[in-house]
Amino acid sequence: MSTPFPASVYAARLDRARALTAEAGLDAIIVGAGPDLTYLVGVEGDTIERLTALVIPAEGAPTMVVPRMELAKVRDTAVGSLGLAVSDWVDGEDPYALVTAATGSVSRFGVSDALPALHVVPLTERLGARPELATPVLRESRMIKDAAEIAELRRAGDAIDAVHRRVPGLLRAGRTEREVAADIATAIIEEGHRTVEFVIVASGPNGADPHHEVSDRVIERGDIVVVDIGGAVPSGYNSDSTRTYAVGEPDPEAARRIAVLVRAQQAAVDAVRPGVTAEQVDAAARDVLAAEGLAEAFLHRTGHGIGVTTHEEPYIAPGNDLPLREGMAFSIEPGIYFPGSWGARIEDIVVVTADGCVNLDTTPHELTVVAAAD
Amino acid sequence: MSTPFPASVYAARLDRARALTAEAGLDAIIVGAGPDLTYLVGVEGDTIERLTALVIPAEGAPTMVVPRMELAKVRDTAVGSLGLAVSDWVDGEDPYALVTAATGSVSRFGVSDALPALHVVPLTERLGARPELATPVLRESRMIKDAAEIAELRRAGDAIDAVHRRVPGLLRAGRTEREVAADIATAIIEEGHRTVEFVIVASGPNGADPHHEVSDRVIERGDIVVVDIGGAVPSGYNSDSTRTYAVGEPDPEAARRIAVLVRAQQAAVDAVRPGVTAEQVDAAARDVLAAEGLAEAFLHRTGHGIGVTTHEEPYIAPGNDLPLREGMAFSIEPGIYFPGSWGARIEDIVVVTADGCVNLDTTPHELTVVAAAD
Repeated sequence: MSTPFPASVYAARLDRARALTAEAGLDAIIVGAGPDLTYLVGVEGDTIERLTALVIPAEGAPTMVVPRMELAKVRDTAVGSLGLAVSDWVDGEDPYALVTAATGSVSRFGVSDALPALHVVPLTERLGARPELATPVLRESRMIKDAAEIAELRRAGDAIDAVHRRVPGLLRAGRTEREVAADIATAIIEEGHRTVEFVIVASGPNGADPHHEVSDRVIERGDIVVVDIGGAVPSGYNSDSTRTYAVGEPDPEAARRIAVLVRAQQAAVDAVRPGVTAEQVDAAARDVLAAEGLAEAFLHRTGHGIGVTTHEEPYIAPGNDLPLREGMAFSIEPGIYFPGSWGARIEDIVVVTADGCVNLDTTPHELTVVAAAD
Repeated sequence: MSTPFPASVYAARLDRARALTAEAGLDAIIVGAGPDLTYLVGVEGDTIERLTALVIPAEGAPTMVVPRMELAKVRDTAVGSLGLAVSDWVDGEDPYALVTAATGSVSRFGVSDALPALHVVPLTERLGARPELATPVLRESRMIKDAAEIAELRRAGDAIDAVHRRVPGLLRAGRTEREVAADIATAIIEEGHRTVEFVIVASGPNGADPHHEVSDRVIERGDIVVVDIGGAVPSGYNSDSTRTYAVGEPDPEAARRIAVLVRAQQAAVDAVRPGVTAEQVDAAARDVLAAEGLAEAFLHRTGHGIGVTTHEEPYIAPGNDLPLREGMAFSIEPGIYFPGSWGARIEDIVVVTADGCVNLDTTPHELTVVAAAD
């Protein structure tokens, strides 16, 4: 593994995290394996039971605590290129003592979102203070994408758009969701991703479950099919795009409702600009659906941030009064769900610009009718 | 999704978890998405930012807290078949209030290992008590596999053994690690797994890094290659087996050291029986290597438990004085690593029986020499 960005990028991220830690009144933050660690120093993976953690004190230099067996991998990231202090440990030794040595005495400390209870609980005991979330510190920096990150998200968007353009050739009555999904997974890699993060092919009644992934259901003529797909490009930045397809001519009432959904999604995209809040963007989509009697059919939030993960801040949801800022990147993905019958969802990734947003996913939003048979 | 075992199995697991919660003096445990939840009620997946959690009070009935969009999926598990109480929530609502409603007032509570800080921190604030780990409660039950679970682990072992038998046909000088790994991944599915959990193909100097996964390195004649592979069978139980291969005739000194490793691995397997501690099994392997001057080359613990995850209790590591009990299932996988040069590892899954253990992985342990070219 090497890092997608030059060492100076990570140095700047670490400086900013340290400054924000101090500003928040925390004595230190402890960033476990997971997306925050990937963001800060380029270390990937999410080892659970062996503690890997970057300790960032409000004053002084960061220390990386790492199992010795991961040392080589960790040195091949910004940890090595920036010459960060490393405390390594082997099975049977006590990694928490290395953390407390790096933090010194603290009265307030933060932990990264992803740090599991397995480590939060013993760290809480050792540090003798109530844990706080480092999220407010880290999201300030992670939420705002710089030009290099936006370029990577754009690369990811182009790659997933290329996959959606191939979907009409893969989706057919008589094939199972699983068969179609396997072909899509191959296409995700072929079009420039290094990993397949998810492939949802939700046909007919399965489309009514927003979290349905894939099944052995045979796709039928007339089905509405939700295809929600994403992967990570080599830098680790993610794509995520949903389109809704009809296999052969759709039911006219379904087509009408999906046209409303397309309008709702566009209304939310159009609402995005700096200063508008996340909940206002959510409401923009929700209002269009409500005006057509479809409020109850929209079961989830409108979107989520994206970057080194597929779900991160900012969340575009009711109750989130976070004002949008230039450089934020997130999905806009309203959906409508009719249990036992069908569902639809349309999703793009957008990046907030000085006066609006750019949409990274450019395939048509409208219900795409594919041939029911060859 | 449906569950691999009948509802009565989950009912018994829940009863035991409740009894152990009371016995540990905890007022409630909170089990987030992750392997503990899969074990207790058959709910799979590991949603991070939306709280899914099973609340088990020491007195009274459990409650499942779940995002509404996951409701259908959750009802199709033991949560539905046992008619557990369900509290659902939608984006914008407060899931922690549902947890505290289910726990009532607590003075001591436990959280599952995998629950991320994102949820541990707000729950700690709401419940007003220091969090403890529910691990001591949950591992008591999860560590001891019943006959149905052992049958699933055996099924997984058979499947991964079948893959190792195909490796000599896939490993060739001139192919990259990645190419070989892709073929192995296909074989893992073809031989009866539903998912590929990991494929490590570590050739030549890459074998010296115990956590190397795969790279574009071209395999060369004379390479020692570590192949460490696993997946989950349809019930969710896992396989994990490592064999070491030589591509063409190996260096005689390497072959000699690998023969020592095979002895060390067998010594640990032979040491397994009820009442022996985890660290004694670890020492059995370590002592054989130390006697041949290879103590420093063995960088990690000897093994880890396996079940609905590939890494769980019991850990076979220095300092773990846990006595083994009948029904425990874990890996025995010593390795030797020579940085810049090569490495080797041999791994089986064993299950503790009344008077020793059964080994679920039956392919030969010795260095397997494969043809360097077709």
